Amino acid sequence: MTETAPRPTLEAVAERAGVSRATVSRVVNGGDGVREPLVERVRRAVEELGYVPNQAARSLVTRRHDAIAVVVAEPETRVFADPFFALQLRGISKELTAHDNQLVLLLTEGRDDHARVGRYLAGGHVDGALVFSLHLDDPLPGLIQRAGVPTVFGGRPGWSDGSRDVVFVDSDNRGGARDAVRHLVNLGRTRVAHITGALDQTSAVDRLEGFRDIMGDAGPQLVVEGDFTPGGGERAMRELLERCPDVDAVFAANDLMASGALRVLRERGRRVPDDVAVIGFDDMLPVTEQTDPPLTTIRQDIEEMGRLMARLLLGTAGAASSVVLRTTLVRRASA
Amino acid sequence: MTETAPRPTLEAVAERAGVSRATVSRVVNGGDGVREPLVERVRRAVEELGYVPNQAARSLVTRRHDAIAVVVAEPETRVFADPFFALQLRGISKELTAHDNQLVLLLTEGRDDHARVGRYLAGGHVDGALVFSLHLDDPLPGLIQRAGVPTVFGGRPGWSDGSRDVVFVDSDNRGGARDAVRHLVNLGRTRVAHITGALDQTSAVDRLEGFRDIMGDAGPQLVVEGDFTPGGGERAMRELLERCPDVDAVFAANDLMASGALRVLRERGRRVPDDVAVIGFDDMLPVTEQTDPPLTTIRQDIEEMGRLMARLLLGTAGAASSVVLRTTLVRRASA
Repeated sequence: MTETAPRPTLEAVAERAGVSRATVSRVVNGGDGVREPLVERVRRAVEELGYVPNQAARSLVTRRHDAIAVVVAEPETRVFADPFFALQLRGISKELTAHDNQLVLLLTEGRDDHARVGRYLAGGHVDGALVFSLHLDDPLPGLIQRAGVPTVFGGRPGWSDGSRDVVFVDSDNRGGARDAVRHLVNLGRTRVAHITGALDQTSAVDRLEGFRDIMGDAGPQLVVEGDFTPGGGERAMRELLERCPDVDAVFAANDLMASGALRVLRERGRRVPDDVAVIGFDDMLPVTEQTDPPLTTIRQDIEEMGRLMARLLLGTAGAASSVVLRTTLVRRASA
Repeated sequence: MTETAPRPTLEAVAERAGVSRATVSRVVNGGDGVREPLVERVRRAVEELGYVPNQAARSLVTRRHDAIAVVVAEPETRVFADPFFALQLRGISKELTAHDNQLVLLLTEGRDDHARVGRYLAGGHVDGALVFSLHLDDPLPGLIQRAGVPTVFGGRPGWSDGSRDVVFVDSDNRGGARDAVRHLVNLGRTRVAHITGALDQTSAVDRLEGFRDIMGDAGPQLVVEGDFTPGGGERAMRELLERCPDVDAVFAANDLMASGALRVLRERGRRVPDDVAVIGFDDMLPVTEQTDPPLTTIRQDIEEMGRLMARLLLGTAGAASSVVLRTTLVRRASA
């Protein structure tokens, strides 16, 4: 480990600037009541000595860290494999940086580590938390509440009853799913299947509800549970073809699963969209343009969701109340 | 933001357990001298109330946070686009988790944000820092030194003079580069070119030195500067073909640039390896197996580098001194 020079002290700054300790302390903590020429002298001394105020001590008083934690309730391998998270983080990073707040991403190997994340959040290291990809039985929300840090969720938490004490940013998952299925029905398809996301997440549940809004409960064999990954989409598509070989349309709950479904359909010699029309959800570029054929999908603005989460937490988006963003149908060749 | 119930206090725990505040404090801080039945009662009360000790206050005394910062000196977009970083983080995450330390990834939009990273490191939020992908004129090392946190670097820092006060984990970049170029020469190639990495990073400088160890200074027109990205590899390959149309071998300083070079060679109708042999560096899977043809390369164990960095910082790798890992030639079809 790097051996370091001793850190310059408040006393050293006071001596260099020719002022009292109390004056240095007031300037460093942004307090008023110090005359401008003295402020200037202290600032110069701080700079020359490379003085760093002891934030641990200071933050006990001010309770400000200018740092926001981001917790993705997935193993770090998934965080780096699924471009959804990179996009959401991009929006968050831009917004936090614009307000000179440090993005503190807390990575884990899985749910077993969430108690440790709760301890870090409770430890007085951040001013708030942005939490996304929650699963229903995750202990994290309880831990966060105990930690007592202001929190904005990405995606509606499963326990939220619509009251104002939980703030989240979400897309209109149910409305978007309805648009997707309606599009398939309007193309004249009659055996429309659905590959769901992980059903312990509200986004997956809401998209399934939207599917049912249009298709009713007819044909439970046409609904197969996936997990939002390309491999999950492949497995679900194989299962669907076994259960219902004459399926003529598939709505996958995200683009990654749709890309997996397309691979299986090609393997089995089904033409898309002639034999089977496929539609996804997200409009995840470049995935949607690189599939063969390019993917029709429901667009949600993932980067904007991240930006809005950060704004709600920082209080720069007006009154802090939840936001649900509209989705739009993007037509390409697959449906 | 989530409104939260008031945090249970130390007093509430003491009352529930029927013991003094001092006893609760001793138990919570892991101190000795409390009889087992009392410890048990306090622990039960802590659990029932969901008490979280005030770590900000406690850490001022103990100076332990069980958290390690990771700083990648690149914009967050690059962190998520280059699989090198995901691999290194995987090794770090596994090792930190095994020792119940929280991985705190500090993301930035770019170098302008490094002062803020320095402030967070100085703020008493982590026990140490792992820093990688440093560029030569980056202010980060100075800021880290002032922050006074123990640090292990990924890749030899440019200012390191080999003394023991800077600890880093690196691969034998120069030796690996020599192996790559020797392999091309042994194939009978005589016009061997080099696409360098970003030359403000020691890994790129060391690989260029390895190239020169074998090829000498002959043919400066055969060395083109890249930037470790696929797009940079494409640009460099175009430049090389213009400068030296009869080039018959290329050593690219990483696999991503080699994949870009392969695309340009195919565009221009050059056969690989018949007309031009290509070799990369990293053995970044699945990139090296998915290129056309599959890529011969110099393997470095990136995940292991991350794991070792964490071990050196946590002091679980014995005495803390720098480590340089060997590389190996991996033969595939491209050379």
